[in-house]
Formats: sequence, structure tokens, C-alpha cells
Amino acid sequence: MCRLWAQSGTELANKADFIHLSPMAIASILTPELREMLETNDGEGLREFCEAMHPASTAEFLEELQVGETWQVLSHTNPHRQANILQYFPEPQKLALVRGASRDRLARIIESMASDDRVDLVKDLEPGLREDLLPLVAQAEREDIRRLLSYPEDSVGAVMTTDYAWFPENLTAGEALTQLRLQAPDRETIYYVYVLNTDRRLIGVVTLRQLILAKPAAKLGEFMERTVLSVQVDENKEQAAQKLAHYDFIAMPVADSEGRLVGIITHDDVMDVVVQAATEDAHRMGAIGPIEEDYLEAKFRTIWRKRSFWLACLFVGELLTVFALASFDETISAIPALTMFIPLCISTGGNSGSQAATLITRAMALGQVSVSDWLRVLRHELLMGLALGVSLGVLGLGVMSLLPLMGLLDSKILANNDPRMLALVVSQSVSAICLWGTLVGSMLPLGFKRLGVDPGIASSPFVATFVDVTGNIIYFSLATLYLI
Amino acid sequence: MCRLWAQSGTELANKADFIHLSPMAIASILTPELREMLETNDGEGLREFCEAMHPASTAEFLEELQVGETWQVLSHTNPHRQANILQYFPEPQKLALVRGASRDRLARIIESMASDDRVDLVKDLEPGLREDLLPLVAQAEREDIRRLLSYPEDSVGAVMTTDYAWFPENLTAGEALTQLRLQAPDRETIYYVYVLNTDRRLIGVVTLRQLILAKPAAKLGEFMERTVLSVQVDENKEQAAQKLAHYDFIAMPVADSEGRLVGIITHDDVMDVVVQAATEDAHRMGAIGPIEEDYLEAKFRTIWRKRSFWLACLFVGELLTVFALASFDETISAIPALTMFIPLCISTGGNSGSQAATLITRAMALGQVSVSDWLRVLRHELLMGLALGVSLGVLGLGVMSLLPLMGLLDSKILANNDPRMLALVVSQSVSAICLWGTLVGSMLPLGFKRLGVDPGIASSPFVATFVDVTGNIIYFSLATLYLI
Repeated sequence: MCRLWAQSGTELANKADFIHLSPMAIASILTPELREMLETNDGEGLREFCEAMHPASTAEFLEELQVGETWQVLSHTNPHRQANILQYFPEPQKLALVRGASRDRLARIIESMASDDRVDLVKDLEPGLREDLLPLVAQAEREDIRRLLSYPEDSVGAVMTTDYAWFPENLTAGEALTQLRLQAPDRETIYYVYVLNTDRRLIGVVTLRQLILAKPAAKLGEFMERTVLSVQVDENKEQAAQKLAHYDFIAMPVADSEGRLVGIITHDDVMDVVVQAATEDAHRMGAIGPIEEDYLEAKFRTIWRKRSFWLACLFVGELLTVFALASFDETISAIPALTMFIPLCISTGGNSGSQAATLITRAMALGQVSVSDWLRVLRHELLMGLALGVSLGVLGLGVMSLLPLMGLLDSKILANNDPRMLALVVSQSVSAICLWGTLVGSMLPLGFKRLGVDPGIASSPFVATFVDVTGNIIYFSLATLYLI
Repeated sequence: MCRLWAQSGTELANKADFIHLSPMAIASILTPELREMLETNDGEGLREFCEAMHPASTAEFLEELQVGETWQVLSHTNPHRQANILQYFPEPQKLALVRGASRDRLARIIESMASDDRVDLVKDLEPGLREDLLPLVAQAEREDIRRLLSYPEDSVGAVMTTDYAWFPENLTAGEALTQLRLQAPDRETIYYVYVLNTDRRLIGVVTLRQLILAKPAAKLGEFMERTVLSVQVDENKEQAAQKLAHYDFIAMPVADSEGRLVGIITHDDVMDVVVQAATEDAHRMGAIGPIEEDYLEAKFRTIWRKRSFWLACLFVGELLTVFALASFDETISAIPALTMFIPLCISTGGNSGSQAATLITRAMALGQVSVSDWLRVLRHELLMGLALGVSLGVLGLGVMSLLPLMGLLDSKILANNDPRMLALVVSQSVSAICLWGTLVGSMLPLGFKRLGVDPGIASSPFVATFVDVTGNIIYFSLATLYLI
């Protein structure tokens, strides 16, 4: 039997990269091998499989086994390792594994998990299973879970962990290192050590780096950093993530309203927050409610509901174009040629509007622009809209003057109007609608934010719908003015 | 003088948060104070200002000073700290400071910078300044800069640092800690220590945590992790960032094609890569070329060029709708009522298409979907498009049957057609165009990716333009079929 993962120096995941096999392909190669090991009761081999690789790789290579088989494999390692591997399974499979495990085993695994991962898992369980399970979990962990569950979904409290290392300020560097050696296996990160006073208030921070650089007899209070940047437990998690990223920290302490340390947020959780926020923003920009699941794993019904809801809203909004056009029915009947340029005119506004909305929404997400900057943004986009409008208007005038040469505008559909007048109407409309779209697209996200609505709602389709209605009015007003 | 920043235990940035002042507001409060300190030559105070806070905060509070004044303040601390503070200035100001510094001072600062930050800075300098400067930089650093400059912009090599800690495997944990104490100030991260053989090939990794937990006499080779996940120096940086995030690492080693360690990428640089990639994707989705600068800081001309280029492309694409509609000129002239529903019909396709394109583009960016999944995606979106199309068609039929009651469709613009037939045409068109938009929106990003083009080009406006042309053809074909 070729035990790929136990070869010293070879690394399955790296190897997979090297030979261009996806983890899924490797999983299907390994699955029969793992089954054979289970049959022949190869305990040592299975333990190696669970412990020799990064837990993320172990989880990937287990994905094709049944729930029962997976637990059989995992039972060859300790609950701490099992917890680590479990957390790397994709969400639906993780839940299937949890549902398929005995309550007792699950309680031990939950006790061994990092405090933030533990809460994420418990949060996703059905209330019934959760209530069955929690009494089996040791008291300290159970209380920790209940406390963390109480924080709102988008607050720092919902992503922080309570596994941090802390010491009083009169400890020496040497004593701190000795204590860390004892505490380390339980702590999420020991790269920052927090110094608390007797009220559990944060008075300093020491990096592990400073700790090993310091003289063993030096007291923490002598060399700790006294200016500790922290985040609030009820602060928005995206905002806190931006802070950690801005300062390039591995972790940041989380304080309650009285300045007491209640947890830490770590770089890996912050990365998840940032990626999730970017996905939500992208989905909103495409006029879909945020979808958390993997594209290929999400439920058809859920996605259909979110997509059809937004399409229906936009459809109803777009109905206003029917009313707008109906009010110009005489102009439309009189000069059929005008119809040919409707999509061209109104799409320009949608495009310039979605550019502006995208720029402003993203700049707000990155903290570069806030609502109070609205006047600066307006001035900027007014100039930009004029510049873009003139550019497109000139392009439009050029194009329109070519159309009669191509025989596209005969005098019948022009109703004997001068094609040059039509060119003037279309190019002026394009300019005006482009400017209008730019203004709408830049102001809508700021307006939404001001009203406490997510600015991402001002997506490209939303802005386009809004501008389509007004765009038609601009176009046909100019047409009626010049041609009728 | 109130020296806010020197109060032990208080932290200016936290305080700013607390009293809801932006760093900019604090900067304007501090600026006169700093000027006074410069005048009175308060060296100790200025040193404290430079050293008591996080360098990011120092940089923020210096933003309102002139270039010369800033350098006067910074000269009160060592080049290493100066380098640290410099790196947190916004890009344009950082360049202004660099241009305003003496060559010699700049050379010392560059030598003190982290190797990746140093290259980023040098990359942005004008070629002339760069050539003046490099000879003044010490040889080792100069060669490091030249080597790192040679990697392509989007490769791992462009974001990695060469300041890593490594040891041979026969060193003991105790010896390694002693050596780290000597090396630490120069190393970007000492939280992972790499174990290399005599060929500089990566054979293991030890975390600082394991190092302090190990018995001092234990050899690294005995307790190091032998399976080291690494990335390739010529690998795409976004892909590498996803790996580091997936495995929750603080840093990952970077190997050349022969497996030799050439650098590391760290969590903070990876965060920048992820945020930058999300911004680029968002900008592409809004049909703007990616803009790297802050919204309010970017040059008007640059933004105008990028925005007008894409608007012009979309305008030219949208011109095809004119040709499409021109080929139905007789139908248009015969039944003016049809014109009223053009925006409604075609916008539906744009909206459903932009939903699909957004979902697929984001799923690809997150590695959930790859080009080889196209058949699964097609099947999924075919079903989804049908479900959405039927939903909107029913909605459309309901709405259309209300319009005659509102007196909107008189027999003149209907050209004596039955309004129920028109309702049938419009609702069928809405269904068909919705399905078509969904298919186009989902397949275009995959197609672009297959052709090696960024899938983000299939933005909402692009998809809408594409679908507008075909949408008009669908609508007027059905109208001609049923009504003429």
C-alpha cells in the first residue's frame, strides 16, 4: 500500500499541486485505500493519515467517505485533532458529520474546539440538537458558548475568540514564558500576550517576539507596549477587520464598554470577514441578495427566491418606463425613427450610472469616502459627468452622421424630418443622460447610506432601472422640442 | 503643552475613536502643537511623538505638515522607525516625502525597510530618481531590490519578503531561540522558522510556539513539521493568498522551481492582495478599468480616461440595437404601442444576466467554480433561467392585463390589435429574454476565463449591452409573428 501522506518530506497537498490534481481527484484515489485500512484495522496508518498533514488537507481527502466511515477514520486521533479537521469540511458536510456523531463524542470535540469555531458550529445546529448537546459540554465551555452566542451576528463579539493569553504586569519575562509553555496548547494565539490589571482592564501588550528578546528577569510592566489599540465587542465586525488590516496586526484585543478584555480577534477570522464582505458587496452589486453558500452547493429554491425577488422589484420599477413612453405616444407615432435609438440613449445612462455607483460604493466599503463627503463627491462627479457626456455626445454625433449614408434612415420612418436634426437630438440626449446617470449613480449610494440602508443596494441594475425612466423622458422631451 | 500621545495608558487612536474624531480632525489639532515643538526644538517630545504610538497613527497625525516639516519631525527617531512610519502615508504623500528627502537619508531609510515594502517604494519612483538612489543603498539590500523587482507584478515574487528566519535541522531548540534573539529585529516574522538542508531546500518548519514548548536540547529535526505547504515564486499572487487564507497561516514559504526557499509571504501582505483583488473585481463589474488610487485622490484625467474608454466601447456595442431595430422598421411603424415596452423587455435580460454574471464571476474568484464546471453551470442556469423566466412572464401577463383598464393602450397606438395579443407578446418576450440573459450572463465569464481574459470583463453593463441587442430581436420577432 502506498501511504503517500506518510512519506517524510513529501507533502500530499503540494504534490497535488505539482501533478495538477485537484484535492477532489486525490480524494477519489485515496478513498479505496482508506476503506482498505479501515477493513484491515490499520490503526497506525489511520492515525498517521489524521495527524501527518495539515488538518485542511485531511478534511479534503476525506470528503468522499460516508459519514460513518469518516468518524471511524477520525476516531484514530484525539478530540483536539478531530475538532481541527472537522472545521475544514465544507459547511453542508460538516453539519452532516455533526448530525451523524454520537452526542458524547460531539461534546468532547466541541470542548476541544477553538472558542470562536465552536460557537460558529453550535450556531448552525437545529435548536433541538443544540439543546440536547449543550448539557453534555463541560460547564466552562458551555458558558463560553452561551455568552458568545448572545452577540449580534455582525458584531465583533460574533467572531472573536476567548482563548487569549494574559498576565499581570509584575510577572517577569521568564515567568511569562514558563506559563505560556503550560497554557499554549489551549490558546488561539500566543503571539500577543495581554497585560491586565486587577480589574481585567487592558493596560499593555507584549509580543512573543519581545518576550523572547527580553531579559528573563525583566518585569512585563517595564517593557510592555502601553498604548494598546483595541476594538469594542459591539463594534461592527467589518470595521474592526479594517482596523486590524490597517495596522498589520496578527490579533487585536476586544474590550467591553468598561475597557475590560473579553476576547481577541485574529488575522484568520478577519480574513474570513473581509472575503465574506467582498462577496456580499459583489452580490448586491449584481442585484442579488447576499448568498453565503458556495455557488454549486446552495439550494436552488433559496437562490431562485433571492434572484426572482430582485428581478421582480426591478421589473416593477421598469414599468414606469411604459408610463413615461405612453405620455409621448404622439411623438412616437409621428416619428417611428425615434424608437430605433431608445436602447442606445437609455443604456448610456445605465452604464455611466453603474460606473459611478460602483466607484462610490467600493470607496465607502474601503473607508475612503463617507456620507459627509457628499458635496465633494457631487462636485467631482458633476465635472466627470460633463466630461463623459461631452465625450459620448461627440462620439454619438459622429456615428449618427454616418447612419443616413448606410441607408438606415429613410424619409418614411423619419416622417420627412432632417436626419441632421435627429442626430442633434440623439447626441444631446446621450450627453444629458450620461451626466444624469453619473449624478444619480454617485448620489444614490451616499443617500442610502445616510438612510441607514446598505449602499450596495444601489447596484448597476438598480441604477440602470432608475435612469431608464428618466432617460426616456429626457430623450423624448428633446425630440418633441426639436422635431414636432 | 498637552502631549496627548505621551500619556501612559492612553492611546491617541483609541481616544480618537472614543470621542468620534477622525484622524484628520486630530491631525489638524496636533499640527500647530507639532510646529511649536519644532520651533522650540523640543527633541524629547518629538522623539516621543515618533515612537510612542503605532507608526500608522504617527503617519496619520503628520498628514497636514509640509514635506520639510515632516522630515524635521521624523529626524528625531532612527531610520528603522522612520521607514515604518513612512510606509503608512497615503501613496501620493509618500512619494512627495520621498522626492523631498535627501538622497543619503533616503538610502538609509530604504536599507531599514522590510524587503517587500522597500521594493514597493522603489517600484513607484521615477526611473531617474531610482537610478540616482540605488548606488547609495548598501550592496546586499541593492541586490535584494533588483532581484525582487524582476518578478512580474501579479506573481508571488512581487509581494514576498526575503526577511525570513531559517536554521539547519541539527540545531537545538535552545540554540535556535538564542539565534532568533540576535536575528529578530531584522526579520519580518519570526513566528515561523524554516528548516533548510545544505542546498537551501525546505525540509521543515517550526513555529515559535513549538520552539518555546520544546525541550531546549531537542534538535529541530526531531520536532519540526516535515510537511511544509509552500507556494511557488512565479505563482499568481491571488491564488497564493487564497492558500494562505485557507490554511489560516500567518506566513507561507515561497520556493523557486527547484524547491529552494527564496522568501515568505505574510498575512498582512496577503490581506492587501485580497482587498486589492476585491476592489479590482468590483471596478470591473461596474465596467471601469481597475483604479488603484483612493477615489478622492486619483487623478481626474486617469479616471476620465478609464471611464470614457469603457463607456465608448459599450456605446459602440449598443449601436447594434439601432441596426436590430432598423430591420423591424415596418413593424415599428405599424404598431407604435410596441415601442412603449422596449425598455421593459430588454432590461429584464440585462438584470437576469447581470445576476448570473455576478454569481459566476464571484464564485470563480473564490475558487468555487472553474471553467471545467461549465456544463454543470449551464444545466443549473438553464433551470434557473426557466424558473425566473416563468415567474417574470406570469408577473408580466398580470401587469399587461391591467394596462388597458388604465386607459394606457388606446386602439390608435395599438393599430387596432387586440391588447390581449400584445400582453401575450410582451410576457412571452420577457420570459424568453430573461432565460436568454441568464444563459449569456453565466456563460460569458466562463468563456472569457477560457480565453485567458479576465472574467470580470463580463460586467453588468457588458452583459446588458450584449443582451439588449438580442433582446430587441426576440421581442420584435415575436411581435411580428403574432401581430403583423
